[in-house]
Amino acid sequence: MGNHPYPKSMERLIHHLSKLPTIGRKSAQRLAYRLLEMDDSFVEELASSIVEVKEKIHPCDNCGNLTDEKICSICQDPQRDPSIITVVEDSQAVISIEKTKSYHGEYHVLGGLLSPRDNISFEDLNIDSLLRRKEDPELKEVILALSPTTDGDMTANFIAELLKDRDITVSRIAKGIPIGANLDSFDETSLYMAIQERRKI
Amino acid sequence: MGNHPYPKSMERLIHHLSKLPTIGRKSAQRLAYRLLEMDDSFVEELASSIVEVKEKIHPCDNCGNLTDEKICSICQDPQRDPSIITVVEDSQAVISIEKTKSYHGEYHVLGGLLSPRDNISFEDLNIDSLLRRKEDPELKEVILALSPTTDGDMTANFIAELLKDRDITVSRIAKGIPIGANLDSFDETSLYMAIQERRKI
Repeated sequence: MGNHPYPKSMERLIHHLSKLPTIGRKSAQRLAYRLLEMDDSFVEELASSIVEVKEKIHPCDNCGNLTDEKICSICQDPQRDPSIITVVEDSQAVISIEKTKSYHGEYHVLGGLLSPRDNISFEDLNIDSLLRRKEDPELKEVILALSPTTDGDMTANFIAELLKDRDITVSRIAKGIPIGANLDSFDETSLYMAIQERRKI
Repeated sequence: MGNHPYPKSMERLIHHLSKLPTIGRKSAQRLAYRLLEMDDSFVEELASSIVEVKEKIHPCDNCGNLTDEKICSICQDPQRDPSIITVVEDSQAVISIEKTKSYHGEYHVLGGLLSPRDNISFEDLNIDSLLRRKEDPELKEVILALSPTTDGDMTANFIAELLKDRDITVSRIAKGIPIGANLDSFDETSLYMAIQERRKI
């Protein structure tokens, strides 16, 4: 019996698949077999879409949201209200809030939260361009839609402090989000309620 | 608000990922974000390993097992006992049996089971080369390690019939596999027991 029951290229694929989040070795094996059974054209498309996304996607120059252009589609949209900016941790939060179909302002994506534990300081976050945007005379309100965790609290307080010298409303989404939970795991209704019930800091 | 919250290349990746088995749209979104965060080099390796596996892997000319050579590593191995062939549905079953580390014969991979329901007839299975292999004077025993389902029963009977004119032992793995279950989902011990307890047809 050989030590390595899989053909080499199969073993390589299983090895790579099993490094993906939530995919263990067993699922990777199953997935590898399924990929073998699927249409060549589909599998080539999949592989090229993986490479393409890494090449094309980067943060928006203005708000930090993921985009394949210089400025993201939301910042480019003349229908969006530039007087409100919602500050979020990552692009997934933008998608979650967009799904509520009830928010028409702009976003600012920090790319993380302050975290002494993980050694993430304000220099690691997308703060510079927020300081630039805060000078926009049209800006009237900043909503902090950050996860209600210790890191989220710290980040919210830090940003509220940065915005203090501008006469704008700074609020933080509140109602309907249990302490310690991650913002990404919420349905549209809970998020919508939390935005409606935001309170001034 | 745009109709399409994701950048185009991101949406394309999510679309492709969500077509993979056991990956819904939600997991595909999460996976796409994680891929964005991962090292470029890893992601390129992953994409190339997906393409490579489709290019290189094909059925072994002798037994039908998946291989990246003309003849698979098991058929090439002079240590394997050519007097016993275990007939299985697919290459995953070969891997499962290899893991028991107790079987030293060869394999024959059918590439499916007879199934009137799914319109799979013996012409769709790797039967021709089994008929050729059955003429090998060294062959003494054929073990049918097929799932104990209706299709598995039908296929086992069909193959037993094909082998009737040769004076060899034909047996089917039995003990420890509940009716209706899929062979791939079994641990090594259950499979080992089933092979030990095989009964002659």
